[in-house]
Amino acid sequence: MVEVTRRRAIEDVASELFRAHGYAATSVRDIARALDIQGPSLYAHVTSKEDVLRAIVDRAATRFEQAADAALATARAGHSAALDPAAALAALVRAHVRVITDDVGTAGVFVHEWRALTGERRAGILERRDAYEARFRDLVTDGIATGDFELTDPAVAAKAILGMLNALSTWYSPDGRLPAGRIADHLADLVLRMLQGGSR
Amino acid sequence: MVEVTRRRAIEDVASELFRAHGYAATSVRDIARALDIQGPSLYAHVTSKEDVLRAIVDRAATRFEQAADAALATARAGHSAALDPAAALAALVRAHVRVITDDVGTAGVFVHEWRALTGERRAGILERRDAYEARFRDLVTDGIATGDFELTDPAVAAKAILGMLNALSTWYSPDGRLPAGRIADHLADLVLRMLQGGSR
Repeated sequence: MVEVTRRRAIEDVASELFRAHGYAATSVRDIARALDIQGPSLYAHVTSKEDVLRAIVDRAATRFEQAADAALATARAGHSAALDPAAALAALVRAHVRVITDDVGTAGVFVHEWRALTGERRAGILERRDAYEARFRDLVTDGIATGDFELTDPAVAAKAILGMLNALSTWYSPDGRLPAGRIADHLADLVLRMLQGGSR
Repeated sequence: MVEVTRRRAIEDVASELFRAHGYAATSVRDIARALDIQGPSLYAHVTSKEDVLRAIVDRAATRFEQAADAALATARAGHSAALDPAAALAALVRAHVRVITDDVGTAGVFVHEWRALTGERRAGILERRDAYEARFRDLVTDGIATGDFELTDPAVAAKAILGMLNALSTWYSPDGRLPAGRIADHLADLVLRMLQGGSR
């Protein structure tokens, strides 16, 4: 339990440092200093800086996945017959936005620093990112099939949507002009307009 | 001239390494090795790894700015009276996409690794990024004023558009399923639909 708490504290501090200064510019010594412990003591808890990054990225990926699961389950619960693709996609967008705005530090590290992972760690996270993106792509495909969405390339649309949403991790601030809920409204609206088209 | 060529060769090689392995995982020694020269010789041309990153990011920023200038000048030339905001924005989107697809390596470093810059280098590039984003935001604002676009927050829309476009630097491949021109078509279409709305 103490060990879990200590690891979590390390990840939280590292997350803040990675976000503020970038993964490249942050050393294990910086993390140790921020925790007010000695560098060597830190190595009792983590094997490397990349190990800490992997833990942060894994945790963030799990949050996105669980939020998407919950959003889709709720959207499905409302429709005993076929799922409404627009409602489901809006729910997915709002869930994604909420994960970012609830903890923009961790989300920012997830979005920007996962590229610093190497080997199997990188392959593992790439696989999870692909599976997550597929949820968006599949819903867009469903919406095209039902006639709710008007577009020709669900893969490009899914990448566009996630690009738009993930950029939030660079510009969202809890002290910013817009509260998180308003931003979620704007982005869900922009995404649905993009998919529904019909005005041109 | 030789010095210019050598510096450019260093930047090109560094650009590829930063994109493939990330800025964090690339050392000056890696860059020297890829150029088949000794580490110390490299320091005759560059003062630090961050110096190389700054040069790459600066060059990429200049490309985006020049492409946007050209696109807007062309859009303006077609309209002696008022600029058509939708046509101008589509031109701006296409120009941005072309800069990315023409050299996705440099664009990827620009989009993902500028965060590793520190101090004045970081402040300088942030300023240019803000000015660049303002071009998109201003056109969205113009389009709302003329009634071409239907939305309430040009700042959020501009960030959404650039997030969508910049994500291309992570998924575009010259050998991919879609040629660059088709991707530009799709993205310009998605952006305009998002702004024009009207179907809901």
